[in-house]
Amino acid sequence: MSETTPAVRRHDADGVTTLTLNRPASFNALSEEMLEALGAELASLADDGGVRCVVLAAEGRAFCAGHDLKQMRAHDDDRDYFQTLFARCAGVMQRIVELPVPVIARVQGIATAAGCQLVASCDLAVAARSARFAVSGINAGLFCSTPAVALSRNVARKRAMEMLLTGEFIDAETARDWALVNRVADDEALDEAVAELAASLCAKSAVAVRTGKAMFQRQLRMPLDEAYAFAGEVMAGNMLAEDVAEGIDAFIEKRRPVWKDR
Amino acid sequence: MSETTPAVRRHDADGVTTLTLNRPASFNALSEEMLEALGAELASLADDGGVRCVVLAAEGRAFCAGHDLKQMRAHDDDRDYFQTLFARCAGVMQRIVELPVPVIARVQGIATAAGCQLVASCDLAVAARSARFAVSGINAGLFCSTPAVALSRNVARKRAMEMLLTGEFIDAETARDWALVNRVADDEALDEAVAELAASLCAKSAVAVRTGKAMFQRQLRMPLDEAYAFAGEVMAGNMLAEDVAEGIDAFIEKRRPVWKDR
Amino acid sequence: MSETTPAVRRHDADGVTTLTLNRPASFNALSEEMLEALGAELASLADDGGVRCVVLAAEGRAFCAGHDLKQMRAHDDDRDYFQTLFARCAGVMQRIVELPVPVIARVQGIATAAGCQLVASCDLAVAARSARFAVSGINAGLFCSTPAVALSRNVARKRAMEMLLTGEFIDAETARDWALVNRVADDEALDEAVAELAASLCAKSAVAVRTGKAMFQRQLRMPLDEAYAFAGEVMAGNMLAEDVAEGIDAFIEKRRPVWKDR
Repeated sequence: MSETTPAVRRHDADGVTTLTLNRPASFNALSEEMLEALGAELASLADDGGVRCVVLAAEGRAFCAGHDLKQMRAHDDDRDYFQTLFARCAGVMQRIVELPVPVIARVQGIATAAGCQLVASCDLAVAARSARFAVSGINAGLFCSTPAVALSRNVARKRAMEMLLTGEFIDAETARDWALVNRVADDEALDEAVAELAASLCAKSAVAVRTGKAMFQRQLRMPLDEAYAFAGEVMAGNMLAEDVAEGIDAFIEKRRPVWKDR
Repeated sequence: MSETTPAVRRHDADGVTTLTLNRPASFNALSEEMLEALGAELASLADDGGVRCVVLAAEGRAFCAGHDLKQMRAHDDDRDYFQTLFARCAGVMQRIVELPVPVIARVQGIATAAGCQLVASCDLAVAARSARFAVSGINAGLFCSTPAVALSRNVARKRAMEMLLTGEFIDAETARDWALVNRVADDEALDEAVAELAASLCAKSAVAVRTGKAMFQRQLRMPLDEAYAFAGEVMAGNMLAEDVAEGIDAFIEKRRPVWKDR
Repeated sequence: MSETTPAVRRHDADGVTTLTLNRPASFNALSEEMLEALGAELASLADDGGVRCVVLAAEGRAFCAGHDLKQMRAHDDDRDYFQTLFARCAGVMQRIVELPVPVIARVQGIATAAGCQLVASCDLAVAARSARFAVSGINAGLFCSTPAVALSRNVARKRAMEMLLTGEFIDAETARDWALVNRVADDEALDEAVAELAASLCAKSAVAVRTGKAMFQRQLRMPLDEAYAFAGEVMAGNMLAEDVAEGIDAFIEKRRPVWKDR
């Protein structure tokens, strides 16, 4: 794989944009180059009305092995460098959360440290049965503090703490049981399972999906009364979309809706 | 079932008040009429010292199919109407949360959209094995924003997101595994399972149960030190109730307590 | 066991400090004496740089049966006494959370009321297969308000509510399924399982473990952007530790790291 190969590949088909981490030789480590490429792709998607959902995939035997330790080691004792690096990485993670359309992680091999954080930051995740997850920085003397932010918002407290303090792997089935991923597929059926979930999202009204993604994260941190006031306003707005009239008519007439607002 | 049949039936027995949604022909949809009736019943219970716990049940093949889509469709383009409707619905949900006694959902058939929100809003829930749950507004072009508020306070983030974006059903056993319901009973044993849980609550000291319900929700959103200060004060107040002296004596003497404060 | 036996025993070995509740005859009830002893031991550990992790264990057939009901009964109607008692107890629980090193609960027999709160307050927990958990104050007319604070930060809402309102026991396997404990071991293998987990933590860099424990709880309540800003700063600081350079070199060279900062 030459140096000029893009760090992240983009492929568009039927409303689904697949972003593929493309540095398999380094287990798709989140190097400065990779973070810049991924951040740029996500930024360009934010304004792209044709995109219905995003699949975050990775080339090769691993989904993502976290930060590039060799690159980090070269900047020893440079606190500013690290603050900038972690801020950039956190920026990419938050861009996933703030993207107007849902992001599905497609996970094979290992997802470790910031790679596990990527999975936790996505709205949905489908894992190959042989995939494994860890926040293993602790094994190199570095507690996975930024991955802990995303992980602890997916997984119960003692489980997150165990993963962070022991650095041990959990398998795909455990990740599903702990709600870090939604679905587990046989390795050879992973693409099919991801495609099925993506197609399910694409079959929905675009305005409803975008409305939902935007409101969901925001209401999570509000007190109940505030969350309901916000959600009620969002939902009343959603009701005015042409798609809802069509959706309800289709529901009543027991036929498939034909969305206009795609 | 005639138009004059009450939309919500109330039945009182042995300290348990059962409210039964009573529009089986429309799958107990939360029409304006139903919301008003349910809200009024809940309001009247708030000051009723004789009530020990509430069971929220439903007549017919479905627990509750959410909002009344036909009624909504008739108000197309009327944002004010929808804001009022969703505010009223959120008000009913919050009334369940704020009721001084616990509310147990008794779920058969389907609980969809705002019907699933009802289950999530109750303190406890028992489901028939054949019951199914979905937040399926997305299928009609309407993201279940207000149901998302209650659902995401019951169920892990990625699971809530999957239900909201796909609109797919989960079965009763999955709902139990995800902590949306507490117990699953064989269909023919549902009433028995609900009665057993309600009887267990009625056997407790009324002052302790009311103290607990009120403090639980409130402390959830506090930082740890604030939550402990609040809980300590509540518990010290609870200690002064006559029932506690009796309860501790009974515990020490290994006999059943005889509560005074019913 | 004589009156002069310490209420809490301390044993240090290989960086692991084991605190053992030592009033088996009273099921290690959190009497004033026990709270004072446990609080004092935890306070002395806070500044002890040689400690790598703490195991909280208990002598006898029960882990801890909660408050000392007889002692409480003797202070009937003394609200000040109870407020002081619950504040002291909450102080001990928060000391566990604020300790610079992780605390592992080693649970056998029963952990009830404030005893269950102790388990919930620890960072990690290992239970014997025959262990059982309840917040059973409700059976004595006293809702477990302060235990609810810790329990509801470990366990999903409806499950916490069910335990608090019914007072019923859950077994060790259910506690693991609900994420109240991390691991379940056969009764005769409990010490081995605890030792293995403690040894895993001791094999890590001390600075990384302490960094992690301190940051984890704090970020949990922050909004996402604030949590990431905080975590990024913590992680950049962690990068400057000597141990990280060694850890990364060891990782790259596929050898065991030799930590300096123990």
